[in-house]
Amino acid sequence: MQLTEDELVAAIARVVSGPAPGVRVGIGDDAALATVRTGELALTTDLLVEGSHFERRLIAPRDLGYKAIAVNLSDLAAMGASPRFALVSLGLPAAVDAAWVVELYGGMVECASEYAVSIVGGDLSRARETTISVTLVGEAPVGRAVLRSGASAGERIAVTGTLGASAAGLLLSRSSKDVLSESLTAGWGRQLLRAHERPTPRIGEGETLAQSGATAMMDLSDGLSRDLPRLCRASGIGAVIRADRVPLAPAVAANAERLGIDPLDVAVSGGEDYELLAVLPAGVIDDAAERLRDRFGVPLTEIGETTVREGITIVGDDGEERPLEPKGWDHFARG
Amino acid sequence: MQLTEDELVAAIARVVSGPAPGVRVGIGDDAALATVRTGELALTTDLLVEGSHFERRLIAPRDLGYKAIAVNLSDLAAMGASPRFALVSLGLPAAVDAAWVVELYGGMVECASEYAVSIVGGDLSRARETTISVTLVGEAPVGRAVLRSGASAGERIAVTGTLGASAAGLLLSRSSKDVLSESLTAGWGRQLLRAHERPTPRIGEGETLAQSGATAMMDLSDGLSRDLPRLCRASGIGAVIRADRVPLAPAVAANAERLGIDPLDVAVSGGEDYELLAVLPAGVIDDAAERLRDRFGVPLTEIGETTVREGITIVGDDGEERPLEPKGWDHFARG
Repeated sequence: MQLTEDELVAAIARVVSGPAPGVRVGIGDDAALATVRTGELALTTDLLVEGSHFERRLIAPRDLGYKAIAVNLSDLAAMGASPRFALVSLGLPAAVDAAWVVELYGGMVECASEYAVSIVGGDLSRARETTISVTLVGEAPVGRAVLRSGASAGERIAVTGTLGASAAGLLLSRSSKDVLSESLTAGWGRQLLRAHERPTPRIGEGETLAQSGATAMMDLSDGLSRDLPRLCRASGIGAVIRADRVPLAPAVAANAERLGIDPLDVAVSGGEDYELLAVLPAGVIDDAAERLRDRFGVPLTEIGETTVREGITIVGDDGEERPLEPKGWDHFARG
Repeated sequence: MQLTEDELVAAIARVVSGPAPGVRVGIGDDAALATVRTGELALTTDLLVEGSHFERRLIAPRDLGYKAIAVNLSDLAAMGASPRFALVSLGLPAAVDAAWVVELYGGMVECASEYAVSIVGGDLSRARETTISVTLVGEAPVGRAVLRSGASAGERIAVTGTLGASAAGLLLSRSSKDVLSESLTAGWGRQLLRAHERPTPRIGEGETLAQSGATAMMDLSDGLSRDLPRLCRASGIGAVIRADRVPLAPAVAANAERLGIDPLDVAVSGGEDYELLAVLPAGVIDDAAERLRDRFGVPLTEIGETTVREGITIVGDDGEERPLEPKGWDHFARG
């Protein structure tokens, strides 16, 4: 890349530019200036590192940019918060050219625009591996955000959408050329790859679940088997999950054999689905499900319930109970 | 490092923990929740990458943590904003142990506490080189933050404190064992190293300069010779600087020969001083300087003035004018 930092910042600013509601100063000054309504700020950040979170040769920069914003939006969705502003820092190896960076920003702006988010700042550095750090600022009515810690025993556990497609998409992207091209011809390959490359942050769904009385919520980034224990620990409860209720992504269920995977395993431990895991009192779950279906066309599936006894149990199709082992993604342990 | 991500997060949370004003939810949920007064948010982020911004063998983790927060605070100081919340993401090689990470956070908390900032969130990832991404959220009275773009021709250019100590400290840290130990024995070495490792963000000074009528402001992170042109471009003006007015750090002026450096060169192009560069109308600069001296014991030195003609000129001790060439740090070009 032959551009100086100032030149690359200028190129990025052209992609990102344009006045945005609430933003007085965006990229280019020492800090951005923006106003929020008088709610509570919701602040979240994610670090994506080449080799741990993505392979540059396996994902188009536009998709990677989209995903980098989407996964942060998902954290705000999990609070029931509305996203407003994003800051993006990039660590770039010398081998990455300016066109790649501009495409990456194109994808970030595409996702941000869909959710009315403004990219207001950032930083650039040389690095040995491509590194993307995104921070999102959102807001929620004071005291109304949904934490991980609010669930009680005897409530219902539910997930939005379906599970497993993202992890299956990752497997597919790494599979042989023959399997990949067959899957793309048949159509289901594109679905799985898209689930992995362009996850849908459940922003509207999160706000609706918060309004519907969800007592605890988080997003499924590392897989149910790692994330549900985190929610349960935060709430001081346990959970029983029914295997036959876990909503498998149709393309995963239909092509599990071709991919050589156990669909339940992928759905429970695969990670990166970015669906919402929500706990709701028994009296409100049907109403919440109806609202999600009506407003967003998204299913809310009850998969189990919270228990006084700590630990997570999964009841198999055969009725047998066994502990749910955390097998999902640990971006930190890998690499 | 043998800890899992959850265990390391728990260790970090113990260092960071404690209730903080305005923070309802800190580290551990999907997002942090915090309230601000009804001002304008000031948002800034910096990415520090091993090899480009620091060498792990040359700086103690506690100092590095302190500096990572300080340099972000400096960006808010440059707006005249008050810092409130920080988010910190770390990319860590497997060779970095948990004790190093806890020390790093110790330094971050030390700096954050001095400026009443709460660390409310973050993320961890494996990486090939140590990477620190800090985002800071501050606030300023609506419409009162000082931008880079507000200066007019015929105003005074001033800097807080003195320049050159940080770059001289970096040179010293890389110099021979003999020079280093001699400098530490004599005392001036510690001063220079400290300037490089623990820069002082000019938070109170920035607010005071904003209240005193500064028309434009930025912090000197890349050196006057790179940063002044940025401010001038943003304001659509030029500048004339007088070499004999540039305030040299005393330890630099006194030991330039031993270090083999031109003190003016280091002060103008060295970078990482994190002093404030401010433009003020002629009628208010004396009053502003008096306030900085009285409140903080910090000098404000007039070094030149803004001009209609674009470009930056430096007038030498001999009265000769020449263009000020941008020679400071470009973290992006290096490496």
